Amino acid sequence: MKELKYLSRAERLFTKRTKMTEPTEMAQELNQMPGSLIYTGEQHVSEVRLELIRFSETHFTQSLITISELGDVQKKGSIAWLNVVGLHEIPIIKQIGEQFNIHTLVLEDILNVNQRPVFDEHDDHYLFATKMLRTTDKKVISEQFSIVVGENIIITFQEKDGDVFDGVRNRLKKPKGRIRTRKSDYLAFALLDVIIDHFLAIIEIYGDVVNEQEVMLLDEVSKDILTDINLVKKEVNLLRRYIRPLKDAIIALNKSDSDLIEKRTRPFLKDLLEHTTYVAESIEVYRETINDNLNTYHTHMTNKLNDILKVLTIFSVIFIPLTFMAGIYGMNFEFIPELGYKHAYPIFWGVIIIIALSMLYYFKKRKWL
Amino acid sequence: MKELKYLSRAERLFTKRTKMTEPTEMAQELNQMPGSLIYTGEQHVSEVRLELIRFSETHFTQSLITISELGDVQKKGSIAWLNVVGLHEIPIIKQIGEQFNIHTLVLEDILNVNQRPVFDEHDDHYLFATKMLRTTDKKVISEQFSIVVGENIIITFQEKDGDVFDGVRNRLKKPKGRIRTRKSDYLAFALLDVIIDHFLAIIEIYGDVVNEQEVMLLDEVSKDILTDINLVKKEVNLLRRYIRPLKDAIIALNKSDSDLIEKRTRPFLKDLLEHTTYVAESIEVYRETINDNLNTYHTHMTNKLNDILKVLTIFSVIFIPLTFMAGIYGMNFEFIPELGYKHAYPIFWGVIIIIALSMLYYFKKRKWL
Amino acid sequence: MKELKYLSRAERLFTKRTKMTEPTEMAQELNQMPGSLIYTGEQHVSEVRLELIRFSETHFTQSLITISELGDVQKKGSIAWLNVVGLHEIPIIKQIGEQFNIHTLVLEDILNVNQRPVFDEHDDHYLFATKMLRTTDKKVISEQFSIVVGENIIITFQEKDGDVFDGVRNRLKKPKGRIRTRKSDYLAFALLDVIIDHFLAIIEIYGDVVNEQEVMLLDEVSKDILTDINLVKKEVNLLRRYIRPLKDAIIALNKSDSDLIEKRTRPFLKDLLEHTTYVAESIEVYRETINDNLNTYHTHMTNKLNDILKVLTIFSVIFIPLTFMAGIYGMNFEFIPELGYKHAYPIFWGVIIIIALSMLYYFKKRKWL
Amino acid sequence: MKELKYLSRAERLFTKRTKMTEPTEMAQELNQMPGSLIYTGEQHVSEVRLELIRFSETHFTQSLITISELGDVQKKGSIAWLNVVGLHEIPIIKQIGEQFNIHTLVLEDILNVNQRPVFDEHDDHYLFATKMLRTTDKKVISEQFSIVVGENIIITFQEKDGDVFDGVRNRLKKPKGRIRTRKSDYLAFALLDVIIDHFLAIIEIYGDVVNEQEVMLLDEVSKDILTDINLVKKEVNLLRRYIRPLKDAIIALNKSDSDLIEKRTRPFLKDLLEHTTYVAESIEVYRETINDNLNTYHTHMTNKLNDILKVLTIFSVIFIPLTFMAGIYGMNFEFIPELGYKHAYPIFWGVIIIIALSMLYYFKKRKWL
Amino acid sequence: MKELKYLSRAERLFTKRTKMTEPTEMAQELNQMPGSLIYTGEQHVSEVRLELIRFSETHFTQSLITISELGDVQKKGSIAWLNVVGLHEIPIIKQIGEQFNIHTLVLEDILNVNQRPVFDEHDDHYLFATKMLRTTDKKVISEQFSIVVGENIIITFQEKDGDVFDGVRNRLKKPKGRIRTRKSDYLAFALLDVIIDHFLAIIEIYGDVVNEQEVMLLDEVSKDILTDINLVKKEVNLLRRYIRPLKDAIIALNKSDSDLIEKRTRPFLKDLLEHTTYVAESIEVYRETINDNLNTYHTHMTNKLNDILKVLTIFSVIFIPLTFMAGIYGMNFEFIPELGYKHAYPIFWGVIIIIALSMLYYFKKRKWL
Repeated sequence: MKELKYLSRAERLFTKRTKMTEPTEMAQELNQMPGSLIYTGEQHVSEVRLELIRFSETHFTQSLITISELGDVQKKGSIAWLNVVGLHEIPIIKQIGEQFNIHTLVLEDILNVNQRPVFDEHDDHYLFATKMLRTTDKKVISEQFSIVVGENIIITFQEKDGDVFDGVRNRLKKPKGRIRTRKSDYLAFALLDVIIDHFLAIIEIYGDVVNEQEVMLLDEVSKDILTDINLVKKEVNLLRRYIRPLKDAIIALNKSDSDLIEKRTRPFLKDLLEHTTYVAESIEVYRETINDNLNTYHTHMTNKLNDILKVLTIFSVIFIPLTFMAGIYGMNFEFIPELGYKHAYPIFWGVIIIIALSMLYYFKKRKWL
Repeated sequence: MKELKYLSRAERLFTKRTKMTEPTEMAQELNQMPGSLIYTGEQHVSEVRLELIRFSETHFTQSLITISELGDVQKKGSIAWLNVVGLHEIPIIKQIGEQFNIHTLVLEDILNVNQRPVFDEHDDHYLFATKMLRTTDKKVISEQFSIVVGENIIITFQEKDGDVFDGVRNRLKKPKGRIRTRKSDYLAFALLDVIIDHFLAIIEIYGDVVNEQEVMLLDEVSKDILTDINLVKKEVNLLRRYIRPLKDAIIALNKSDSDLIEKRTRPFLKDLLEHTTYVAESIEVYRETINDNLNTYHTHMTNKLNDILKVLTIFSVIFIPLTFMAGIYGMNFEFIPELGYKHAYPIFWGVIIIIALSMLYYFKKRKWL
Repeated sequence: MKELKYLSRAERLFTKRTKMTEPTEMAQELNQMPGSLIYTGEQHVSEVRLELIRFSETHFTQSLITISELGDVQKKGSIAWLNVVGLHEIPIIKQIGEQFNIHTLVLEDILNVNQRPVFDEHDDHYLFATKMLRTTDKKVISEQFSIVVGENIIITFQEKDGDVFDGVRNRLKKPKGRIRTRKSDYLAFALLDVIIDHFLAIIEIYGDVVNEQEVMLLDEVSKDILTDINLVKKEVNLLRRYIRPLKDAIIALNKSDSDLIEKRTRPFLKDLLEHTTYVAESIEVYRETINDNLNTYHTHMTNKLNDILKVLTIFSVIFIPLTFMAGIYGMNFEFIPELGYKHAYPIFWGVIIIIALSMLYYFKKRKWL
Repeated sequence: MKELKYLSRAERLFTKRTKMTEPTEMAQELNQMPGSLIYTGEQHVSEVRLELIRFSETHFTQSLITISELGDVQKKGSIAWLNVVGLHEIPIIKQIGEQFNIHTLVLEDILNVNQRPVFDEHDDHYLFATKMLRTTDKKVISEQFSIVVGENIIITFQEKDGDVFDGVRNRLKKPKGRIRTRKSDYLAFALLDVIIDHFLAIIEIYGDVVNEQEVMLLDEVSKDILTDINLVKKEVNLLRRYIRPLKDAIIALNKSDSDLIEKRTRPFLKDLLEHTTYVAESIEVYRETINDNLNTYHTHMTNKLNDILKVLTIFSVIFIPLTFMAGIYGMNFEFIPELGYKHAYPIFWGVIIIIALSMLYYFKKRKWL
Repeated sequence: MKELKYLSRAERLFTKRTKMTEPTEMAQELNQMPGSLIYTGEQHVSEVRLELIRFSETHFTQSLITISELGDVQKKGSIAWLNVVGLHEIPIIKQIGEQFNIHTLVLEDILNVNQRPVFDEHDDHYLFATKMLRTTDKKVISEQFSIVVGENIIITFQEKDGDVFDGVRNRLKKPKGRIRTRKSDYLAFALLDVIIDHFLAIIEIYGDVVNEQEVMLLDEVSKDILTDINLVKKEVNLLRRYIRPLKDAIIALNKSDSDLIEKRTRPFLKDLLEHTTYVAESIEVYRETINDNLNTYHTHMTNKLNDILKVLTIFSVIFIPLTFMAGIYGMNFEFIPELGYKHAYPIFWGVIIIIALSMLYYFKKRKWL
């Protein structure tokens, strides 16, 4: 295997490119100590915000806290949900990690916006990381979202203002909801459930686009539609890339025998897996439809090519012999007996029309017309 | 991975679309408490109907009951089959759930018409959800169907009037049938067996259509047939999407060690799995045939293209040189010696005919004619 | 997922079709009690025939028996092979089932000609069902074949006169053959072994056809060969559909820990699996070759298209400019100075020949000639 | 599933074929007792040769023996390697089998040249069968090769003169080699190792051919290269068909807990598996490259088609309007005012040249030139 | 299966080739004793260099040592990292192997530059072999890299000057780093982590190239881009070939229960696996994009073909009938009444323009313009 031959040929590619990140720089950035905390995303909020919700069967409070109040968050007898908005200030994340004894690799995963969806168990807490998608105003917003679940506490990390959890917050406010009587594991489930639901909603949007394209392809085949199909294909592939490890992570969550997951929560987790499977299967269906659409597009192109060539052939085949005949009697030979006949011209027209009609009949018979 | 680039480009797609469900609305609808009961289908019957069949080895009764009579349904010494027709009245479903102690997630699955086929065990009952297909009057009717099996009781839920179970009901009426001597598990098997049989019947219809298309493709290649092939492909894919999780669910049913499944029922369940596997394999065969049909279609298109171009080429190649020669002797040069020869015109024709014939011979030799 | 949209569109397909089995009828036929005995094939023999072979290490007898003699078939100290030819008389099958205590589902499988190859164990007997293929007189005959193996007895069921077991019968007649010293399990193996061998023989026939087609594609590309390739493809796919579950069944037979299978028979069963695997792999190889043949066909079509267009282009490109030039000097302008030159005509020919030759040189250089 | 329809259609195929083996004959040949010894290959050596190497840490002898000396082969305290060259004399093989107590199925496998690579354990010996490939004089020689390994003895069977083991024999001659201090299992490993190495060498030859073809496709696209690519594809597929079961057999050998395999040999077996995996992966890489080459070929064909049509279009589009204009002024209407103008002819040329140039500009702009 | 037919046909291929390694030579080279030490790469450094780093929580030293100092390397209480640069001097490698009791197969793997990434455990040490990629100056450098980890010692082998570990060396120099407090297993992890990071960096470069090509395909379709796409495809496939066994090796490392791997290192190994999975998935994404790009290229080619033919057809269809009409009135029949009409010429032009315009209208309506 003369493998290096190919890699060294790549040099040519590198030389031609100009926009590319300098590879050594990129390598440098990655040349980090494992477990070192670097936020790999961009800053989306002006200031890191710590939102605390505390609830028990009987109480519910909601407040913004400062970094100095972290010590009071975890209390016996009530569940605390600390929501961290904004990941760009490493020291705050570090302090939270120290306060709640979170493993350094968990913190690294939280800060890595390219982190694949993952379920990761540690001694007294577990991490669930995923993408969170939502739509606002005809725009899809995607961000990295992580949940750390411990005894009586759940800490969530998100990059941007706004999330999909208002429904959960409202249910938490209602005194008699099931969610108020359960532990942190159920709250974590409720958050994941909402995230999966939003995944589904967004996938359905793409599904609608795909189905519309399918209908459009019945009428019209423009180059625009090809670009659009390819665009949707790319994005559906991207969503699929999120969903597959997400499903793996939820399977791992289902299999976990962590003490933090109550037995009565298990059916809900199984249900969550069912939903995720449904989402994953929907994506596969849309992918298939997209590929069918591309095939339909190509078939239309070939049909169009056939149509074009049929028109060309019919015209050529009819007129080429006729033109030849006109050419014959345009010759200047001195002795062409037909030229002098009185009815030569009308006879000529008659012959020509007969030839043309028999051509048309031939094409009709071959179903070209 | 600059992932968001793609998602934000999607904006353009969203802006162009008009028929699409407003994403936020859709999200809202989905932003529900897990386990909350919402019927995701449409109302198909005017009123929810509760059909009760009660039988033992010696007795058989059939009646319509009201919601207030639910308490009397489950009795020792006889098997009750409660068939609920219509899922749109949540309170009734809820009351049934409470009466028979059905898990809230089971009820949610029953009401969800997008529920994938699933087998789900709980303490003293299990759920089997599936699509139920039947044909009436050249129309395929599909609806969500769920069976909850408990000790001495089986509760079935369907969306629409009419079902495929009249054969089972008749067998139940016969005093000495095997079905009368067995428990609820055997009745559940009998219902599933009928459902699978109808799946098969409908798949065979598609199989016939596919095979007819195969035959039609031997003669004729119209654009209509392409549309029809694609239509059948879509629907066969849809059936496949039903069958695959259904097979998984039946495998899970076979593996279950629930006390509710008697040992003597197990061979029947294994047989049921065999049937389902047969159905699943049939679908795969038809899918392959559909793809072969599409390929045949494309090959025919290419052959047609070749035919068209052959005709064009033969005509052009024969007449273009002839027309050129006619053009030569149509020139007005003062000194073209041939023009004055007496036999020039007949010689011209002779040359032309020889050229044309040798062209034809050439095409014959190349097997173009 | 607006799934019903597609299924309801199917109505159009149903309306167009005329030859199709009425779906409700078909459903009716299938709406049968599980375990009810229906023969799903056609009658192939005028009368059901019961052939009995009884042998021990020292004895061998062969006879036709009647249904009333069934009670005497199973005897200690000798092995009985009861071969039932013809499955259309349900009462006989039923009586056999009762006599030898065969499970009702086993009987149902025996009568179902669409039964997939299967190995099915019950308390004191097991079933092995498969397709049996043989060739007679350039015709392939396929029928459903089932073996029920019990203590000292083996019952085989076949639809048609004639089978592939004459070799086994001859070996049974020989006093010192291994087969005479073994139990029913070895006889069952010997029968399966012959069936697999015949599968292989028939697959090799298709393999020869496929390889011939490959050779033919080197010379000639007619539409006939496309039809033939597709025909063979269909049939090889059908054989593959038989082989895959057959291999699964033989794997199950190998894994079985039934008391009916002696330890010294196990290496032979393993060998049987090896053969089946070889058959299955041969089919895959032929499938690949078929697909390669189809690809070769398409490549030839494209090459032919290129050839056609090359001819068209060469002729057009050479003669179109020449015809134009002849047209120029056919114009009737009063003042065209060239017309009066004495050597204009020969010069004109010279120019034309030079143009044509340089065109030919150009095509030569581009390797179009 | 109207399956028989297809098989009976096959009749037409059978009738058309003439070269084909008579199916019934072929079936007859296969209608053999399992375990009966038939050599399925051809005779390659004039006489069966028995080569005996005997060695211990201190001794080494090499000799040709006769069939009568078989009884002296297996001795305590030294390892015997009996190499049987030529498989066509069944009695000799049979006698060897009896002498060393080899299972009849093992002997059948040894004689079957279509035997898939297999590892098969029996009480006191195991079989390893494989293809053995080697190159001599620009020719690839392939033969069936089997190793039977027992306590202190290894018996190898090959069809043809010459093998790949001279290196092993030389190492055996050296007094202090590792191979002299080990048991029969290590010798078996050493032989397999050489066979795998030769597989690799031959695969690399095909790899070189494939890579050369890739380079050739950059320049030239002839029909010859298509034939060559398809030829290599067939042969690489054949090699792959050998390698895949070979890898399975080596995995089985690794998993075996036979007493005949010493613990210190295990790392070498694991290494052997690594090598085989490398060979298998190399084949996959070459297969991918072959498919890429085929795709490149097709792309070139399409590009060529485009080129041909571009030339045709450019010439036609330029000259067709010009010819039309010349035709206009070749008309014989009595009153065409332009005909009498003095500068009509040069103006005509001017107009024509302007039209032609603007056409060329248009094509330039569309990047057709 | 007439297999040899194909292999013997290969002869023709061998004869045609000239550049190919003589197969027998190649076989000879491979015909080596297993476990014999041969360096299969080229010499990249003038002299083998032994770099020793020794550290404990409190000490750190870095030095070049000679082969005679090997005995002092492994010491209790500190971790030694011996980095061997250059693999071409077998005796040195052999001496290292003897000094540290490394298994002969491990040494063979270290010297084999075609060794697949592998994790291999032995009694008191384990081997991890992989490719190491890095970029310098727009060039990708690839080399074989092996780590042998023992108690308190880690020995690394690399072929070339320069590596990717300067970051690790810097961290080792810092007195309080985590890496100083851990054992050899953590150092091994740190080295692998850096290697994976560089894999990712290089894959991202290809990802950028692929995405650029995607953008370029929106505008321009030249043959150059096809060559570039195929080049990148080849190299991405090569990287994938490295990554897949690398992931398998890291999975094996994770599963290992070696005493040499501390419990607190396990989460880091799991993290390493996550990274590798991310790298592997990225490659799959780029592969998909490359294939999409190739498809886009082909679609563009077909669209271009359609465009070319549309232009040809439009011109031909418009002018062919017009030329025919001009030909009619260029005929020399004596009695063509139209020729004498006064307004015949302008009327002729009128008719021609009407015909041309209606053609254009027709094309407009068919959306060809």
